[in-house]
Amino acid sequence: MAFPGIISFSPTPESVPPPNALYRLKPPEGLPVHIHPLNPLDFVLRAAQIYPDKIALAHPDVERPVYYTYAVWAQRIQNLAYALIQAGIRPGDRVAVIAPNCPLIADIHHGVLAARAIVTPINIRLTKPEVDYILNHSVSKIILVDHEYTHLVKGSKVPVIVSQDTGRAGDPYEEFLSSGRRFSQEKGWHGLEAEANEDVGACLCYTSGTTGRPKGVITTLRSSYLAAIANAFETRMNPESTYLWILPMFHAAGWTYPWAITFAFACQITLRTVSYPHIWNHLLNSNVSHYCGAPTVQIGLVNAPEAKTLDRPVFAIIAGSAPTAHLIGELEKRGIQSVHVYGLTIYTRTFKTLGPFTRNYFQPSWRLLSHNERSKLCARQGHSFATAQQARVVYTAEEDSVNALRDVPKDGKTIGEVITRGNIVMKEYFRDPDATRKAFQGHHFHSGDLAVWYPDGSIGIVDRSKDIIISGGENASSVAIEQELAEHEDVLEVSVVARPHPKWGERPMAFVVLREEAIRRWAMKHNKFAEDLKRHAKGRLPGFACPEWVEVVPELPKTSTGKILKTQLRQYVAKL
Amino acid sequence: MAFPGIISFSPTPESVPPPNALYRLKPPEGLPVHIHPLNPLDFVLRAAQIYPDKIALAHPDVERPVYYTYAVWAQRIQNLAYALIQAGIRPGDRVAVIAPNCPLIADIHHGVLAARAIVTPINIRLTKPEVDYILNHSVSKIILVDHEYTHLVKGSKVPVIVSQDTGRAGDPYEEFLSSGRRFSQEKGWHGLEAEANEDVGACLCYTSGTTGRPKGVITTLRSSYLAAIANAFETRMNPESTYLWILPMFHAAGWTYPWAITFAFACQITLRTVSYPHIWNHLLNSNVSHYCGAPTVQIGLVNAPEAKTLDRPVFAIIAGSAPTAHLIGELEKRGIQSVHVYGLTIYTRTFKTLGPFTRNYFQPSWRLLSHNERSKLCARQGHSFATAQQARVVYTAEEDSVNALRDVPKDGKTIGEVITRGNIVMKEYFRDPDATRKAFQGHHFHSGDLAVWYPDGSIGIVDRSKDIIISGGENASSVAIEQELAEHEDVLEVSVVARPHPKWGERPMAFVVLREEAIRRWAMKHNKFAEDLKRHAKGRLPGFACPEWVEVVPELPKTSTGKILKTQLRQYVAKL
Repeated sequence: MAFPGIISFSPTPESVPPPNALYRLKPPEGLPVHIHPLNPLDFVLRAAQIYPDKIALAHPDVERPVYYTYAVWAQRIQNLAYALIQAGIRPGDRVAVIAPNCPLIADIHHGVLAARAIVTPINIRLTKPEVDYILNHSVSKIILVDHEYTHLVKGSKVPVIVSQDTGRAGDPYEEFLSSGRRFSQEKGWHGLEAEANEDVGACLCYTSGTTGRPKGVITTLRSSYLAAIANAFETRMNPESTYLWILPMFHAAGWTYPWAITFAFACQITLRTVSYPHIWNHLLNSNVSHYCGAPTVQIGLVNAPEAKTLDRPVFAIIAGSAPTAHLIGELEKRGIQSVHVYGLTIYTRTFKTLGPFTRNYFQPSWRLLSHNERSKLCARQGHSFATAQQARVVYTAEEDSVNALRDVPKDGKTIGEVITRGNIVMKEYFRDPDATRKAFQGHHFHSGDLAVWYPDGSIGIVDRSKDIIISGGENASSVAIEQELAEHEDVLEVSVVARPHPKWGERPMAFVVLREEAIRRWAMKHNKFAEDLKRHAKGRLPGFACPEWVEVVPELPKTSTGKILKTQLRQYVAKL
Repeated sequence: MAFPGIISFSPTPESVPPPNALYRLKPPEGLPVHIHPLNPLDFVLRAAQIYPDKIALAHPDVERPVYYTYAVWAQRIQNLAYALIQAGIRPGDRVAVIAPNCPLIADIHHGVLAARAIVTPINIRLTKPEVDYILNHSVSKIILVDHEYTHLVKGSKVPVIVSQDTGRAGDPYEEFLSSGRRFSQEKGWHGLEAEANEDVGACLCYTSGTTGRPKGVITTLRSSYLAAIANAFETRMNPESTYLWILPMFHAAGWTYPWAITFAFACQITLRTVSYPHIWNHLLNSNVSHYCGAPTVQIGLVNAPEAKTLDRPVFAIIAGSAPTAHLIGELEKRGIQSVHVYGLTIYTRTFKTLGPFTRNYFQPSWRLLSHNERSKLCARQGHSFATAQQARVVYTAEEDSVNALRDVPKDGKTIGEVITRGNIVMKEYFRDPDATRKAFQGHHFHSGDLAVWYPDGSIGIVDRSKDIIISGGENASSVAIEQELAEHEDVLEVSVVARPHPKWGERPMAFVVLREEAIRRWAMKHNKFAEDLKRHAKGRLPGFACPEWVEVVPELPKTSTGKILKTQLRQYVAKL
């Protein structure tokens, strides 16, 4: 084990459960005996009951590492719930968290549910105005923030609890937890009421804002429970498994892995940053069996100087974009088996399903194919996931009426839109009934992803939602970028598309039409203008969304109705 | 593979799906997009979509073996649904099946759900009057019966479909399926409506009748779905798995394995009888990875002359009674890993939960113990299952008020009753609100099983429900036996208890007080009377419930209030 610090670590006294702790919430009243509202909180309670002394959570690569057993971690989660209740959090309230992968955000995914509140994770890479928008829109009643990101909540009108990420006495977050323990007066889990309605919100996660402002996606307790179980089952997790957090937990609630891991009684390791030396250390020495990551991360991982070949199977759950045949082969060489999933999560506009919704199911007959042919098949997005219901490809609204959703033929050629329904689709856009109605037209969720449907019933995405730029694993909305760039005083019109980038996968490229009065001023100095525009962008956009390239053009290609033809811009970019 | 017949087998033309079959039921109306009623029927549709050419069901050890791929099997299931609808079956109707393990009963578990009806499996070892009672009580609208058991439905007033178990044209069951295909007019799955309410009955299974008449236990679609997923997860089933049917499928809906197997896309092999040569042939040659069975079956299996040591891991799911340390060791020697579960199913009065409700979770620290110590721990019934909620041990009603369910201390000594609640508990006793109310007093299901609670939160059954006799894996109700024996003209009073039996585990022993006028007649001829009583029993009771021993006694031990003290009889038996 790569956990040398484990010997000298002791949890705070308030993290230690009383003897004979009872892992049972106060049951909801009025329900039949055979109906227990599905709730992913149950998993950590079962784990603490059955494997109290097993390491649940390791946070090794920091100055002050922490290691929690399931018994201790469950107690900390309980303390958090009581601390939130003491702080005035009521059922249905939103609790915001701004943190990289660390115990704080892992705690939140359980403790907030135990307080019957809604987890509201915020991307640490957003700008202050974006964070402000989300905090306001979500009406978050309290913010738990990692010490590195306190600048994002400066001037907050609601209480802020800072975690120094030490797990030691004196850390404000630890004080908060300890106050929860005192407040509980040792009533324990039984002092907390189980939520009676499995259809209430579990998480409120915000999109990266494709159409300007981020939208809040509500997922429910029921859907989180069913999605988490499916993830544990599909990736064959079990009590011997160890999950390494490379994927940020704030992304789509970590694709429901915070609960899949506890369902399987597995161990999880949190890493604050994507550091390949640390990742390889754990792959080689900490018995890691599972991790999730977009292809860009996987590329970095196989190309890291520390990369070796593993002598036990590791499952890499890949989403974000289709892994290339080359990448699948490179992973295989390292002993890493790829599980390619698609969830509308990172492919497009940030999870409207709960992490994976389809999976590429390996067919025995593929073993007979060449590596290249096989990899092409493995790169398809596949079929509905274990507890997902339907994923279909239908003619898009432009070609057909939305009300008569018509399947495209399963010919592997005709392009349509992916639509889904079932238990692991989001419930609604928070405080946005119009957007909800629109997304659910025809009684299916419209992904905006374009795909073909193969004769075997599997889906192949041919184009991710046209305007999304996936930059370093982050979704950058071209529309949002355009809005910011358009505020530059010299910009008349602007259009942004993705351009391939050797390191980041993609970066935004901006095509700008200058205002009349600016044309002369910047003549022969387009490079200078580009610098000026990038500077302008820097203060307003997260790094991944800042344009890497700026090209000044006399006009933008448009349809007869005046809509910018991004297809033509992409064709142009493809030739660069 | 031990499937030599697979090459020459062709399914009937009506079993072959049309090209481009659509595996999608007509969705229920009026539900939000993110709520899809849980239904274990979905699993086989996913399997047929994703692994159409994989062997789903093999029935090899008969004169006319059959082998169905998932695509073919799903079509047969669809045909069955249409045939039932054509026969007048409406949502909520009961469809009875009387069959050993064979494709017929495997089909039923999916096809009946596809017709939105309720599966009503009947134990093939019951007597004609018992079967009549169940058919009447369940108001079954149609009976599907295996050719070997047609005597059980003679004179039936409702339609009877006989299966010759051939899978070939000319078999009445095949004609029934084919008529369904014709009736469907190729509307396919989309011509069948998905059930909108996940809380409706999926199965109606009858108890062996502890208090005289069998009781009908209703389990729901939701509970079957969640229990099946838990079984697949807990036993690590996957598409490479092969499940061997040793446990009768008519027992508690096969502990939900009919659906757990399809959820995992695994293969299943049906065996009409428990034949150790066939079992070992499949263990050795058919890549079997999973099977379920009571300890008696497991004992037979390890002691069979064909027994060898397996070179790949096989999971034996054990329930029915606690496996002994010796048995666990013997299985281990054969390469068989035991998964000890407890479900109120076979321990006591025939499933009021859906198969397993608790499981013995192996602790890493047990590896350091002696084999004997470890086996003792492995014999405990353990903790709540993956999707189960609560199993508690409380003071019994005699000692405490039912309304104030009070946990016994977790001292491994104090005996209490096991009570449960949650999603995999039965919904109700069919047409018996009084019994339902009684079973659910204090808002928990009362198992009637006595247990201690250990400090680690695991449960250890110390006595199965007092009056049940587990004979050859079957539950024989002592009360039901007593009622039949009491009808013998010479019997004044009778009490029946379990007595250990080297082959069957237990057999009933009857203690009889003769009527005054019979005492002299049978004087010095108690052996003859025993023979006479056994003959009497034979026509009225299934073989496993017939008394193996009969002892004539002058009186029965009783409490002051006149209740027979079975404890004393058991103490007497223990010394025999």
